[in-house]
Amino acid sequence: MTRKTVLVGQYDSPFVRRVAVVMHYYGVAFGRRVLSTFADFDTMLELGPLGKVPILVLAGGERLWDSRAILDFLHGRASPGQSLLPHEEPRRRQVLRVEAAAVGLAEKAYERGIELARRAPGTQDPTWIARLERQIASTLAWLELQRPAPFLVGPSFSVGDVTAAVALTYIKEKWPQLLPPGAFPALEMHRTVCEAMPAFQAAPYSATEAAQSGWRPQRP
Amino acid sequence: MTRKTVLVGQYDSPFVRRVAVVMHYYGVAFGRRVLSTFADFDTMLELGPLGKVPILVLAGGERLWDSRAILDFLHGRASPGQSLLPHEEPRRRQVLRVEAAAVGLAEKAYERGIELARRAPGTQDPTWIARLERQIASTLAWLELQRPAPFLVGPSFSVGDVTAAVALTYIKEKWPQLLPPGAFPALEMHRTVCEAMPAFQAAPYSATEAAQSGWRPQRP
Repeated sequence: MTRKTVLVGQYDSPFVRRVAVVMHYYGVAFGRRVLSTFADFDTMLELGPLGKVPILVLAGGERLWDSRAILDFLHGRASPGQSLLPHEEPRRRQVLRVEAAAVGLAEKAYERGIELARRAPGTQDPTWIARLERQIASTLAWLELQRPAPFLVGPSFSVGDVTAAVALTYIKEKWPQLLPPGAFPALEMHRTVCEAMPAFQAAPYSATEAAQSGWRPQRP
Repeated sequence: MTRKTVLVGQYDSPFVRRVAVVMHYYGVAFGRRVLSTFADFDTMLELGPLGKVPILVLAGGERLWDSRAILDFLHGRASPGQSLLPHEEPRRRQVLRVEAAAVGLAEKAYERGIELARRAPGTQDPTWIARLERQIASTLAWLELQRPAPFLVGPSFSVGDVTAAVALTYIKEKWPQLLPPGAFPALEMHRTVCEAMPAFQAAPYSATEAAQSGWRPQRP
């Protein structure tokens, strides 16, 4: 039987990393198992039916997936004043809307990466890539319009902020051309403020883990 | 100002349909705007930054997305005894794990459909299709092992049941070869029980709406 909570996944994944940041924020002790959905796909399929990260293995051996279900569990164990997901409306749905936009942004950036870097040569579809890029640009523009100062929903820090900052760092590290300098100044400030927080610094983006699973920097 | 809650999306989408079924279950009155993320992509991008369905437009004009954030809002307004998402652990995380598996199943089936039916001719990647099919088969097998009798988590109906049944119907309607007769008997019984419920019958899968947005039945 496992004795310790274990987070499965790499710190170049925005989905893994947002869970890690929230766990550090809540002070939840955990170990990590660095597995890749590409290099370790067979093992990932044994840990969870979808073969996706993150998976959280609880101390008793129970396994949870995906990042939203894991975060719901973590929010539920946080003290009421500490929770990164407000209980009261309308703030709750405002935070969840930002979180959904940020998760979607990370997903579309991930899908674009699959298209450009993981598919068989010659099977890229320019029309599909253009569609993903419209979705990415549209969501960046919407998030920028929320004018984080420094946070995205009202005066206090939320899971929407964690997710947006992690998604932005993911894009900046893997596909910097999608975030031209100066194009999204409020988001860049938001990202800088968040990444300086102890919970983010305890779970930094990892270029090393990205490289271990076969990632090579590419253009465009 | 809008006077009525409006659900945006088609009833061939499992993500739209699971929201509709839950609204009917809770007795929430709503209208619908039948838009396609393909045929009406420009309009969809105006309604929400990701250009995805579902979007819920509240009576005051506020827009919510995606299906999980919308469902969180709806669960929060349901009476405690009626909510399809339990408040108590461990049942809450068990339901969310089933829901996440079912959402992932629908996503992987959707992605496989994109690959086979929406991409430019000649840009299909057999390796990627095989990966999606492994994820689909693995998740179907996991759900089957939960042995719904008739429900997936304990004796009572939950959002996990709604999502699994809707995902299964989606696959059966669009890609029946992924659900060979007899291969998943517990899931087929589960789907039959759920689809007979009034909330499901009030928001049936729509082959007509699928066809309107350009869907043509295909093999494999």
